[in-house]
Amino acid sequence: MTSKTAGTGLFISFEGIDGSGKSTQARLLADHLRGLGRDVVLTREPGGSAGAEEIRALVLQGDPDRWSAETEILLFTAARRDHLERTIRPALAAGKVVICDRFADSTRMYQGLSRGDLRAVVDDLHRLMIGVEPDLTILIDMDPSRGLSRALARNGTEERFEDFGEDLQAAMRAGFLALAEEFPERFVVIDGDQEIECVAAELHRVVLPRLKLGNSQPDKT
Amino acid sequence: MTSKTAGTGLFISFEGIDGSGKSTQARLLADHLRGLGRDVVLTREPGGSAGAEEIRALVLQGDPDRWSAETEILLFTAARRDHLERTIRPALAAGKVVICDRFADSTRMYQGLSRGDLRAVVDDLHRLMIGVEPDLTILIDMDPSRGLSRALARNGTEERFEDFGEDLQAAMRAGFLALAEEFPERFVVIDGDQEIECVAAELHRVVLPRLKLGNSQPDKT
Ligand SMILES: Nc1ncnc2c1ncn2[C@@H]1O[C@H](COP(=O)(O)OP(=O)(O)O)[C@@H](O)[C@H]1O
Ligand SMILES: Nc1ncnc2c1ncn2[C@@H]1O[C@H](COP(=O)(O)OP(=O)(O)O)[C@@H](O)[C@H]1O
Ligand SMILES: [Mg+2]
Ligand SMILES: [Mg+2]
Repeated sequence: MTSKTAGTGLFISFEGIDGSGKSTQARLLADHLRGLGRDVVLTREPGGSAGAEEIRALVLQGDPDRWSAETEILLFTAARRDHLERTIRPALAAGKVVICDRFADSTRMYQGLSRGDLRAVVDDLHRLMIGVEPDLTILIDMDPSRGLSRALARNGTEERFEDFGEDLQAAMRAGFLALAEEFPERFVVIDGDQEIECVAAELHRVVLPRLKLGNSQPDKT
Repeated sequence: MTSKTAGTGLFISFEGIDGSGKSTQARLLADHLRGLGRDVVLTREPGGSAGAEEIRALVLQGDPDRWSAETEILLFTAARRDHLERTIRPALAAGKVVICDRFADSTRMYQGLSRGDLRAVVDDLHRLMIGVEPDLTILIDMDPSRGLSRALARNGTEERFEDFGEDLQAAMRAGFLALAEEFPERFVVIDGDQEIECVAAELHRVVLPRLKLGNSQPDKT
């Protein structure tokens, strides 16, 4: 099941290791599409709706070990369900483009990496309570050591996911590439080790042909 | 799967409509068993562990409509998972008696009542993430109008579940009785429309024969 059942919009997610440029490119793409006259909702996970942001705070604040991996997956799934109901589905139903900085693939990757046996649980919960995949998932791929130094140079707020060494970043890169192979129909891998404008231009070539006719918008492609 | 896999303890839950005397009888039973030399953990749902109490607050505070039924079930399941991991399982593993004021049957009943189509989701989530049933579930059954007037006379704090009319109380009573028929191997129905001491005495007759030999306790039955 894809978001096509929910409307005429387009649902795009960004995935990739920390510092790969997801937030930067998501914002630039949103600006570009708005410039073309499209309604765009730029959102992120975990979070993206009032309730989901509260759940995000509950999970990410405090001692990192205070939730088991299983409880954390349930909380993230609750947040995703709220985000989907309150933000993503209504926007898609109204013909908007939804650009989401991380989505379910991040849960698959992080949980699969930290506790391989939990990937089946993540998938079962997703099938049961979420059921939606993006129409298009952009994986910004890059050398982990360069991503890490970018992320460290940035004013970091999402410390929990960035407090990792280079080995783990390399494992994450491999995990995302494996997901891209698992879901080839929606993943597009872009080389993130280029100038910001070059990555953005490559993104336009991927995204613009996929823009569908909105409720009231002429097709801009 | 029952708690027997988790240790030598006994896991008892109390269910029933508001005002039926669950909290009163759970406390009295805990006192009685402690008097017999048993280690008892008296707990409740939603809540029962530090993390689960935080999730409980997130669900029960604020506008009752701010979470969809599905998100609420996910949050309650996250709370139950934490409660199970941090409170119930360790106590059972140590041979203690766990007395829990409401457990998964309350979720089955309330969600099944408000959105019948969600019972399957509740069951799937339970199987996937919880998997444990009490060894013994005490259903305190009683006339809903008498239960309601007791609950209203009490200083109510759990307003969300008590802000209901008599018809709904009657439907809840029927819902709990249906669960008792569905799980006859662990449910015992007790008439709650008696003096507190009479209900307590009936409870002793049900519970005492089921006390298993603890890790270091002689069997008191
Ligand atoms: N292509 C790029 N080249 C150089 N620096 C970049 C590039 N893309 C992003 N950055 C910078 O790297 C840091 C991390 O980028 P960000 O978009 O926050 O990554 P992510 O959201 O994937 O963690 C930011 O300071 C950003 O300005
Ligand atoms: N058997 C009983 N007879 C009369 N009053 C009772 C009885 N059991 C409980 N009560 C009173 O009724 C109110 C509700 O009891 P409580 O144990 O809080 O019910 P519950 O937890 O099932 O909502 C309390 O004020 C309690 O003291
Ligand atoms: Mg980012
Ligand atoms: Mg009570």
